[in-house]
Amino acid sequence: MAAPGQNLAVVVHRAGDLRLENHPIPEPGPNEVLLRMHSVGICGSDVHYWQHGRIGDFVVKNPMVLGHEASGTVVKVGSGVTHLKPGDRVAVEPGVPREMDEFCKTGRYNLSPTIFFCATPPDNGNLCRYYKHSASYCYKLPDNVTFEEGALIEPLSVGIHACKKAGVTLGSKVFVSGSGPIGLVNVLVAKMMGAAAVVITDLSASRLQKAKEVGADFTIQVKNETPQEVASKVESLLGCMPEITIECTGVQACIQAGIYATRSGGTLVLVGLGPEMVTVPIVNAAVREVDIRGIFRYCNTWPVAIALLASKRINVKPLVTHRFPLEKALEAFETTKRGEGVKVMLKCDPSDHNP
Amino acid sequence: MAAPGQNLAVVVHRAGDLRLENHPIPEPGPNEVLLRMHSVGICGSDVHYWQHGRIGDFVVKNPMVLGHEASGTVVKVGSGVTHLKPGDRVAVEPGVPREMDEFCKTGRYNLSPTIFFCATPPDNGNLCRYYKHSASYCYKLPDNVTFEEGALIEPLSVGIHACKKAGVTLGSKVFVSGSGPIGLVNVLVAKMMGAAAVVITDLSASRLQKAKEVGADFTIQVKNETPQEVASKVESLLGCMPEITIECTGVQACIQAGIYATRSGGTLVLVGLGPEMVTVPIVNAAVREVDIRGIFRYCNTWPVAIALLASKRINVKPLVTHRFPLEKALEAFETTKRGEGVKVMLKCDPSDHNP
Amino acid sequence: MAAPGQNLAVVVHRAGDLRLENHPIPEPGPNEVLLRMHSVGICGSDVHYWQHGRIGDFVVKNPMVLGHEASGTVVKVGSGVTHLKPGDRVAVEPGVPREMDEFCKTGRYNLSPTIFFCATPPDNGNLCRYYKHSASYCYKLPDNVTFEEGALIEPLSVGIHACKKAGVTLGSKVFVSGSGPIGLVNVLVAKMMGAAAVVITDLSASRLQKAKEVGADFTIQVKNETPQEVASKVESLLGCMPEITIECTGVQACIQAGIYATRSGGTLVLVGLGPEMVTVPIVNAAVREVDIRGIFRYCNTWPVAIALLASKRINVKPLVTHRFPLEKALEAFETTKRGEGVKVMLKCDPSDHNP
Amino acid sequence: MAAPGQNLAVVVHRAGDLRLENHPIPEPGPNEVLLRMHSVGICGSDVHYWQHGRIGDFVVKNPMVLGHEASGTVVKVGSGVTHLKPGDRVAVEPGVPREMDEFCKTGRYNLSPTIFFCATPPDNGNLCRYYKHSASYCYKLPDNVTFEEGALIEPLSVGIHACKKAGVTLGSKVFVSGSGPIGLVNVLVAKMMGAAAVVITDLSASRLQKAKEVGADFTIQVKNETPQEVASKVESLLGCMPEITIECTGVQACIQAGIYATRSGGTLVLVGLGPEMVTVPIVNAAVREVDIRGIFRYCNTWPVAIALLASKRINVKPLVTHRFPLEKALEAFETTKRGEGVKVMLKCDPSDHNP
Repeated sequence: MAAPGQNLAVVVHRAGDLRLENHPIPEPGPNEVLLRMHSVGICGSDVHYWQHGRIGDFVVKNPMVLGHEASGTVVKVGSGVTHLKPGDRVAVEPGVPREMDEFCKTGRYNLSPTIFFCATPPDNGNLCRYYKHSASYCYKLPDNVTFEEGALIEPLSVGIHACKKAGVTLGSKVFVSGSGPIGLVNVLVAKMMGAAAVVITDLSASRLQKAKEVGADFTIQVKNETPQEVASKVESLLGCMPEITIECTGVQACIQAGIYATRSGGTLVLVGLGPEMVTVPIVNAAVREVDIRGIFRYCNTWPVAIALLASKRINVKPLVTHRFPLEKALEAFETTKRGEGVKVMLKCDPSDHNP
Repeated sequence: MAAPGQNLAVVVHRAGDLRLENHPIPEPGPNEVLLRMHSVGICGSDVHYWQHGRIGDFVVKNPMVLGHEASGTVVKVGSGVTHLKPGDRVAVEPGVPREMDEFCKTGRYNLSPTIFFCATPPDNGNLCRYYKHSASYCYKLPDNVTFEEGALIEPLSVGIHACKKAGVTLGSKVFVSGSGPIGLVNVLVAKMMGAAAVVITDLSASRLQKAKEVGADFTIQVKNETPQEVASKVESLLGCMPEITIECTGVQACIQAGIYATRSGGTLVLVGLGPEMVTVPIVNAAVREVDIRGIFRYCNTWPVAIALLASKRINVKPLVTHRFPLEKALEAFETTKRGEGVKVMLKCDPSDHNP
Repeated sequence: MAAPGQNLAVVVHRAGDLRLENHPIPEPGPNEVLLRMHSVGICGSDVHYWQHGRIGDFVVKNPMVLGHEASGTVVKVGSGVTHLKPGDRVAVEPGVPREMDEFCKTGRYNLSPTIFFCATPPDNGNLCRYYKHSASYCYKLPDNVTFEEGALIEPLSVGIHACKKAGVTLGSKVFVSGSGPIGLVNVLVAKMMGAAAVVITDLSASRLQKAKEVGADFTIQVKNETPQEVASKVESLLGCMPEITIECTGVQACIQAGIYATRSGGTLVLVGLGPEMVTVPIVNAAVREVDIRGIFRYCNTWPVAIALLASKRINVKPLVTHRFPLEKALEAFETTKRGEGVKVMLKCDPSDHNP
Repeated sequence: MAAPGQNLAVVVHRAGDLRLENHPIPEPGPNEVLLRMHSVGICGSDVHYWQHGRIGDFVVKNPMVLGHEASGTVVKVGSGVTHLKPGDRVAVEPGVPREMDEFCKTGRYNLSPTIFFCATPPDNGNLCRYYKHSASYCYKLPDNVTFEEGALIEPLSVGIHACKKAGVTLGSKVFVSGSGPIGLVNVLVAKMMGAAAVVITDLSASRLQKAKEVGADFTIQVKNETPQEVASKVESLLGCMPEITIECTGVQACIQAGIYATRSGGTLVLVGLGPEMVTVPIVNAAVREVDIRGIFRYCNTWPVAIALLASKRINVKPLVTHRFPLEKALEAFETTKRGEGVKVMLKCDPSDHNP
């Protein structure tokens, strides 16, 4: 067990090998801040690195601190930092571009190939007591936004980026494919952006029930329908084909259903990732001018999310279903692995376990 | 008084000369439908034609039926009409392009110079018992949307078109200048599109109160502040400069305040129209890349509005503050002229005065 | 042989059965014009209907006049036509929407499911002496634009629509996959839009030579490279990955190469159509935010093309490699079938066989 | 006179006080490069600071090195620089954001309020022998692009940014108001982007002649026409109203003409800056949905310009009409002040005065 004041961290060493370790407290550079972490959510990718030691080409070669859905309190600021001061409560955007390359300069810094990203090998995450981060990517939380809301900005950002790329707007009819955490935030965000109706699919009735609670207008429990049959049910429930489909499963049949379901001139956004090669009805998409757009993480979403949370117009609190102190991180990871609840939150500050 | 079955109509002959007259019931052409009108709202422009006989270059030279915020029931369809049938309840989009010109072909039919538009000289409006209209510009109302909601789509459309041109999106901070009916619908629509905070200005405390009720987050009662002072108050209330300003007064000082208030890179939309020539701080706008965009009526808004009304996500019913039967139209116009309430609705169907 | 003054037409009856027949001269409706056809190009789809009697779901069930790349002279105008008069030389846009539906109203009339389209069953084309067409879709040619240039606006439009969808702009690096007629017009148009460099691939050295002549900066003769190897060659020649790929073959390996080749954040436009189901590296596209966009024909391209042709900034004349009088249409189709040259033009006006 | 090896610089001390001085050679920081300057153009703003000691709110309070249209050779690189090495020839983008603020993150770094900008008080420019700059804002020149072309990227960038904001695209009809250096680059760029026709106005016949040479299709020598009359001439020459107007004078009457001239639904871009307050026909612009957009400098233009220059598709060389060695900078400034020629270039490298 870590002594108070030291830097307890959740570290994956290789597939199946997750440890609680004491690391040194880092020193912030001139444009960095040191944070005392407060709340950090566990993401499916954290569990995946623990279970498999890799995601695609990203391989855990050296021990890596997990965690990238995070908020905390500034305890020290670098010499060049002007917009933050000790005591400020902040949400942490985990991706920090290292170079001012063409992607950064054009506002798409998430695509920068040399970006630092928390808990993507070889970059350490922030599931620990103390963590330093680029001050420009720490966003001050208003008093009426909790630390946990701050940590939830990360999954919320996936929904914001996906819905913006999809072009969700006033009156949109939206089909969300898959009712896991990412599907749920897409429902939340699509409704916030003025979608008139959202239909969501899943295999699991209980997950669909959760989708109803966060605002889905219609649900479809998929059994063994063909992609065309799923598309047909979507149209039937909405009363028309959706202009927008947000695919959150990565499953081939679901991507196919997404193409068939989307209205001519509409957009299919791929959020879920599955097998590298997928067979799709490309002519159907092409001749109906259905755009197929991918998203990679997010950019420029933290200010948007904070403004919404501050306005009390969006309620993400129900997404947190479990909480564990940092010391019980292994238990928290086991819970997440079993797929219980929606979001498991780790409480990193021993003196404050509030939301 | 008109005998039942005949076509009682509200007709302006010249400035100050408004009459109730019996007109013949028109016969729909092949692509038209004949409507039994149900609810028609009175717009400021209707009152203006009555009081002044003109708006800008549009002059009442021959008697003209007023009214363009309308809904009714299909009673007869032309030979080429397939998507509507007698008994269908519809909302009426008042602008119908006459030619498939470049504006129509590119989806901006509101800019077509030869467009037909209800109650804009010399085109008759629909403040009457029976009215024929292009079937393509009559939109079927779902059962759960009332006729009055259908009629209110017209003013709502001004807000939808303005907010779309402004680029309101998730998390936007919006400054609405002027709290009349058009300012109110812009507040409603901006919030629907995900705006995080809306601040609104007006001279009248009671109008600001109404804005609060429909969703404005902050209000500013303007007295004799300079435009820069108004801008400064807007920033102070929002905690930052708004990306978007929607100017609904047409007053020079308000347009100036709109420019000063808008964040660099943002957009000022001009909805209210005042004097032709206006003095503005053009360099301030230009060097901060604040776009100044006008809107002319609307296009492609009825389907959006109907989807929203059907989803019960927007409540326009509080906008209707007065109702009169068509026979009492002159009294209704006097009420509107006095500026009482928000929206005065005329009930054109003697057998059904329900909302 | 047809007597002068009668309406000789090129008619496909079923797969393999192409005939020259005399049809009656049609009478234009109120919004139509009657044209004396001058120059009509033969398209691959015309040959396909002749050879196979169908393209996908479009089946020749009744005899159909072929031809949709056309220009001619107005000889008669309907009562409602104001912008054209007899003697006007016009280019014919073959797609005419029949309904003012949501696609028309939003400026994407090419997606209207009930659109009329020349020489797509069951709609007749204009490979004949006299043809009537919607006046709104006939565009007056300036004196300095020839009839053949007018007819070539149709294939040019495919390039304009594709390059606009692709977002070609100043300084773009563009990869065009496939050097057939459609690949060539995409090269032409991309360069016109300011592309800094265009690389094009094909199996045939002679087709690549043609691409060089119309402006391609680099060519790659594909042999048995893998898709990744093609992508690598594209990057190597351009000095960077292209932001834009325009795929004109429809071949699975080429679509794959298009995905691998396109820079993160870029766009792959699918112009060529092949098998309905295609296996693609969807994760590669998605995580690099490479958009995959289809196009269906074109919309709003005729005015653009005429402005360009009138300005003498684009030279499409070299595309015409063969000419036949209408009476020798069968010979012309045989020539096209053999894949000789680029564009075969039929001369429909016996009194004027000039370009 | 400066001894070789020292850092001769052109310094403005206050209005009317321009000096050649020897400054120390700076040491590059970790992310910077030290450049041996080669060619630096004189801009109107350089002359303005010399003559007036200020531009708007930017006041010369301390001696400031002038110059921001520059190219040179890397002689030393900071420890963190990987994409450049000594000997690389580079063009210098003068604006370097100091903070990763919201404007930077969204790709509009030109709007960042704390940006460093060469020769805008209090930031020094690069009209000197040796100059250090952020490596990320130095762009390697290909062998086939000269130093002077590299220096001309700065004025060219104004045209690129303006034409992109204006939405110039294939077939655009463009009205450029004012035929000074900025008007000329807008003509060049608009044509490069596919504009079908460009009409340009000026008071001076010789400047209009220069516009003809760089590609203007039509010219109008303005005398004492009203703004409406100018608009009418523009329409008459183009055969239609232009979708786009690029205003490069800042004169009130010209801005008014720009509004009247622009087609409904089009865009007026304000490039020239004149008096702060301007009276404009705002209702005319608003009801025709003519957008009024400002530009501030530029962003993301250097890579575009280099790609174009490398492709030999654009010829900016004729813009250079005078050359002076750095030692004769005062004479060069006098020449520029007198309005002779188009672009005066200072040659900063005593060992190489080639273009």
